[in-house]
Amino acid sequence: MTAIPVDVPRTKGSVTLPTEAGHEAAVRALFEKWGADAIRDSDGTVLSPELLAMGPRIYSTICLVRADQECARRHPDKLPMKFLMSEPVTAGSERVCIDPLAGFHREKYKLAAAPEAMEYWEVIDRTTGEVLRASEWAFDPASGLVTMKSAVPFHVYTVNVLVYVIWDTTSMYNHLVNKWNRPHVVSVDPYDAETSDELMAFFQRWLDAHPQTAVVRLTTLAYHFNLDCDENAADKFRDWVGYQETVSIAALKDFETEYGYRLRSEDFVDEGYYNATARVPSERYLDWMRFIHRFVVRFGKALVDRAHAAGKKTAIFWGDHWIGVEPYSPEFQEMGIDIHVGACEDGVALRRVADAPGPQVKELRLYPYFFPDVFREGGDPLAESTANWSKIRRALMREPVDRIGYGGYLSLVTRFPEFVEHVAWLCDEFRAFRRMSRGTESYKAPVKVAVLNAWGKWRAWINSFGAPQKFLVKRPDVTLVAGTNLLECLAGLPVDVEFINFDDIRNGVAKGINVIINDGDAETAWSGGRHWADPQVAAAVRAFIHRGGGFIGCRGPTACPRQGRYFQLCDVMGVEKETGQGVQSAALRPSHVPPHFITEDCREWDFGCTESFVYVRDPATQLLAAREAHVMLAAKEFGAGRSVFMAGLPYSPENARLLYRAILWSARLENSLARWFSTNVNTDCAAYPEADVFVVANSVNREQATTVYDGDGNPQEITLPPLASRWYRGC
Amino acid sequence: MTAIPVDVPRTKGSVTLPTEAGHEAAVRALFEKWGADAIRDSDGTVLSPELLAMGPRIYSTICLVRADQECARRHPDKLPMKFLMSEPVTAGSERVCIDPLAGFHREKYKLAAAPEAMEYWEVIDRTTGEVLRASEWAFDPASGLVTMKSAVPFHVYTVNVLVYVIWDTTSMYNHLVNKWNRPHVVSVDPYDAETSDELMAFFQRWLDAHPQTAVVRLTTLAYHFNLDCDENAADKFRDWVGYQETVSIAALKDFETEYGYRLRSEDFVDEGYYNATARVPSERYLDWMRFIHRFVVRFGKALVDRAHAAGKKTAIFWGDHWIGVEPYSPEFQEMGIDIHVGACEDGVALRRVADAPGPQVKELRLYPYFFPDVFREGGDPLAESTANWSKIRRALMREPVDRIGYGGYLSLVTRFPEFVEHVAWLCDEFRAFRRMSRGTESYKAPVKVAVLNAWGKWRAWINSFGAPQKFLVKRPDVTLVAGTNLLECLAGLPVDVEFINFDDIRNGVAKGINVIINDGDAETAWSGGRHWADPQVAAAVRAFIHRGGGFIGCRGPTACPRQGRYFQLCDVMGVEKETGQGVQSAALRPSHVPPHFITEDCREWDFGCTESFVYVRDPATQLLAAREAHVMLAAKEFGAGRSVFMAGLPYSPENARLLYRAILWSARLENSLARWFSTNVNTDCAAYPEADVFVVANSVNREQATTVYDGDGNPQEITLPPLASRWYRGC
Repeated sequence: MTAIPVDVPRTKGSVTLPTEAGHEAAVRALFEKWGADAIRDSDGTVLSPELLAMGPRIYSTICLVRADQECARRHPDKLPMKFLMSEPVTAGSERVCIDPLAGFHREKYKLAAAPEAMEYWEVIDRTTGEVLRASEWAFDPASGLVTMKSAVPFHVYTVNVLVYVIWDTTSMYNHLVNKWNRPHVVSVDPYDAETSDELMAFFQRWLDAHPQTAVVRLTTLAYHFNLDCDENAADKFRDWVGYQETVSIAALKDFETEYGYRLRSEDFVDEGYYNATARVPSERYLDWMRFIHRFVVRFGKALVDRAHAAGKKTAIFWGDHWIGVEPYSPEFQEMGIDIHVGACEDGVALRRVADAPGPQVKELRLYPYFFPDVFREGGDPLAESTANWSKIRRALMREPVDRIGYGGYLSLVTRFPEFVEHVAWLCDEFRAFRRMSRGTESYKAPVKVAVLNAWGKWRAWINSFGAPQKFLVKRPDVTLVAGTNLLECLAGLPVDVEFINFDDIRNGVAKGINVIINDGDAETAWSGGRHWADPQVAAAVRAFIHRGGGFIGCRGPTACPRQGRYFQLCDVMGVEKETGQGVQSAALRPSHVPPHFITEDCREWDFGCTESFVYVRDPATQLLAAREAHVMLAAKEFGAGRSVFMAGLPYSPENARLLYRAILWSARLENSLARWFSTNVNTDCAAYPEADVFVVANSVNREQATTVYDGDGNPQEITLPPLASRWYRGC
Repeated sequence: MTAIPVDVPRTKGSVTLPTEAGHEAAVRALFEKWGADAIRDSDGTVLSPELLAMGPRIYSTICLVRADQECARRHPDKLPMKFLMSEPVTAGSERVCIDPLAGFHREKYKLAAAPEAMEYWEVIDRTTGEVLRASEWAFDPASGLVTMKSAVPFHVYTVNVLVYVIWDTTSMYNHLVNKWNRPHVVSVDPYDAETSDELMAFFQRWLDAHPQTAVVRLTTLAYHFNLDCDENAADKFRDWVGYQETVSIAALKDFETEYGYRLRSEDFVDEGYYNATARVPSERYLDWMRFIHRFVVRFGKALVDRAHAAGKKTAIFWGDHWIGVEPYSPEFQEMGIDIHVGACEDGVALRRVADAPGPQVKELRLYPYFFPDVFREGGDPLAESTANWSKIRRALMREPVDRIGYGGYLSLVTRFPEFVEHVAWLCDEFRAFRRMSRGTESYKAPVKVAVLNAWGKWRAWINSFGAPQKFLVKRPDVTLVAGTNLLECLAGLPVDVEFINFDDIRNGVAKGINVIINDGDAETAWSGGRHWADPQVAAAVRAFIHRGGGFIGCRGPTACPRQGRYFQLCDVMGVEKETGQGVQSAALRPSHVPPHFITEDCREWDFGCTESFVYVRDPATQLLAAREAHVMLAAKEFGAGRSVFMAGLPYSPENARLLYRAILWSARLENSLARWFSTNVNTDCAAYPEADVFVVANSVNREQATTVYDGDGNPQEITLPPLASRWYRGC
């Protein structure tokens, strides 16, 4: 083939920018330069006539639960609540005194100590696991202390308490981290009927007062994600998708009525792990999530209906108060949201937004945020944006979105002229994708990949952080993945992806799925933990593979120590992990690393670890890469199917290619490789059959030559400048 | 002080050598050169008049259970038995066929399929953990196969079978590894009364036929340790201290009568882990060990009584058939053994022999064994001996032994003249220790260290191999410890050591113990696993520390995932391990590594791992060493006591010093450091107050200068040649 490069005409639009009072000239200049067509104001910003004269579409932001501070202060007993576990205290004698809030930031919480709240408090002997009887401890409201007089010496005790969140988490974060010095913002809990009525009335007045607003940007809806600081304002706990701060006594009671059982504080506290995303979720916690999600949908729908009645569209931002929104749930569509905005710093984040079902317009809020943490003397916003965009563009080649945008203070940007030029190029490149692809789907290999974990769709395209994440020292508000990052590799591959959980496969893997990926630390939600002890699960996945399915295990796949196995699908993968139990049995040591389809493109990979502690257990296993005697990559046939084990997979162009080849090999689709395929691992290509075009992109900052195979397998030599993409007609 | 070096006169004796038929001249020359006073013959060796003329004490070796091959072949139904688990088989359909012996060396086992044996067979669905009913499977004696007709597809099945050991393990090992080509040796099980009577009669005849024998070396007693090969003769499983091959139906039935319950095959098979030493032992397996131990003591006593009646002494060798001997058990003394010989390649092995209680003469069988694996073209026996001896000598300075010796073929040694000279020096040095110390105890710091694991005295001074051991590629018959080796560090420290288990402390730690060490992989017998879930254990250890005790945790100390903690004594140690469950909670990151008593002598250590995944959990923790953000060494006060955490501790002079300082610090005995203390970490000193001498030794092959502090803390400068030791009068 000899396809002809297309000179894509420059256009404008599809870009949203923030406004900034007092810097109208800067806003206007960048609006023009970057070809923006929408402006987002913040709460309280008044748009100047000068800006309005540009004719932008106006997004106005409102976060209703914190918009009316008067309402919050009128109802101190209607603030969001949560359950906290005190720091564990070791009894030095029979007398123990616990300050439940010690170790938490003193300004964020207030103990809820009314009788109906106290009913939920629990004092637990963590050495025995027993809950103490109420007569065995006492709470003194004056001091805020819990005391015990007959503790068992040298047992460890904790107190689970119910508290009010008296400082909105985002406000607190900006106060502590970004040194904002504004009055503490308080959020309210919209679950309370009276509060909800007040919020609706407030919203109606707000709609009436914003005639120029085309889009109401609900930032976001009802409940804040969990972010805790210690007494010294240092990070203590973060769960960006956790339902910890969704509690109220009214909701707990309604839940009890609806589900027929009563939740305990320990159901939320979860031994102090707080049902964080890495934990295999309990059925009780999942019930609570479903319950709150349905409430948030009802609350959101009421807001959307009002906005629509006022002739406005609505947007949600996958941001601070996003808990309960769940864009992958079918109920989400009942809200009627029009635009779905997501912060996006990599391919995973793009797919999180782009893959969400429904008719919503999809918009990315790109990084860096225009904020002094990066836009300062010595900061390098250009490098950050370039690194992000090369990953985002890979993913964009697989799933389209409709718009991009930025947030923060535009006035900060003007001091970085190279960055201004770079964003102009980036916006043009994004619009070229829009224009050339016409929003159509790009070519996919005939393979559907299902990512199997304990969450499934509930946590589609959420980073499955592993233990190395805890030891990563990084900028606090930037997503940087330590060690393995298989999802980022996957985000840019031309394959269909869906996320499934163990309920989805317990009775058999759905038709249409070709390859299952199980990627995560052992015994966490990401690999599945106790679900692998379920005979139905293990048998269903084995049956799927045996009849021809592919399986890719990464990190601690199928790990669950039981019946002599750590990897429950050890028989399928042919490898096993040594945890210390089996030191006296010998590992097989295949000396021969055979040439293999999976490893054809590269010689060396970084698997994100130096020691996997995984060894070959079955002689039929093909060892494809090892570090000393530790298995890094292995493959095995199982019945008509095939499996691949990887010790880890940090994102890199080489590893993304490795994953693609592993997917095709495990699905016996090796022959599909040379279809819309760019041989050089630093390049990617995507074809849009409906638009009769294809694009080739260079991910690295050096010129790259590559061979591109078209849909019939015909090769063409192409050379691309650093970081560039180029469009071709003919597909 | 200015102590005066002593010129130790050369003497002879305290050395045992093997003899070798046909090489009398070589034997005689080395016997003279090395100052030996005893000769050990092997089964069947006839000593020449020439050798007898040297007047050696004669040790004659007999391993009774394999001495009479006629007896073994007369009683094919009285061979030792064991339980094996088949390789797990995944059901592809409802019909499953399992060859129970597939994967095992075909010449070692024979299925025991008589009805009374079949009663112990178990077919287990490893996917559900359920034992199948006997009606659900069938065994075909002709094919040796077990078949099922209604298996659950894609469940995994195993068959536990009872087998006869039809090839003695040592014979098989020499056949396969050392390419010996002699007839297969078969051992018998002395548990059978008739067999036992035959063995006793054989032994009596043997005693009568060996009038020149002074010492009967029982090599060793009744049951062989477990060593399995696969079908290709590759190593499959090794447990040097396991009771796997001690089974007979008679013993099982007697056990049932005595203990009131019946053991299952699964009690032995243990999911395929076979109760290997790393496994936290079950009470049922411990009962079996006690039962067999008592039998071995009865059997051994009968042999010893006969030898004594014949005017001979007895020796046991801690070797192949040593299972059931248990030299640390009080019952062991009932046997009346006179000499206790142990193979010894490092300080741990010396301590294993030297610390065993009782009046036995202690003798070390040193390495390298005179065998062609080392004594070959290109082999370096000198380097191996030098490396071993520098570790053994460190330990010898803490606990004396009475004799040393060698094994193998002396004729091989003569081709290595430097090695011959080296051994002459080594024997002289050993005799100098004997002569100067007069066998008295060396000075110890006033601290008693208890090593706490699930075995206690049952496995005193047994290497606590961790997971890295599995990935070590090494010579199969040499003990080389991968990664951490705290015991080797401990073996050469001037402290009292004992080994305790969790029963020993459940009701309180005994008076006299100053420091508890808990060292081992998480959830193994070495760290203790489920014992840490016992509230009595956790509370007892906390109470001990709180009232002033020391605690040193290494690798996975107190690990047992439960109630929000992985390290159950997280409160004591101040550090916690991240397994993936707590990724969303932040680690404390102390930036300041303070100067500390523990770390005063060195700057850099190798903790045997690059990532510990351990982080600081309590702000009172002192972080003493870290690698990136991973804690390697930390210290904390707890009540009146102190604890130290180490991520690992491979043996090195620096790490041994680190451990010594950690012990003294944790016991608040910092002031005891400069007492009989040599400042240079490559040197050690030991004082013998009763003998009024002290010795200083240099562990490395370079001259070392050091300051030695005497018992009153007075310093003296001393310089030592490479690897040398020097004795001084005055103590």
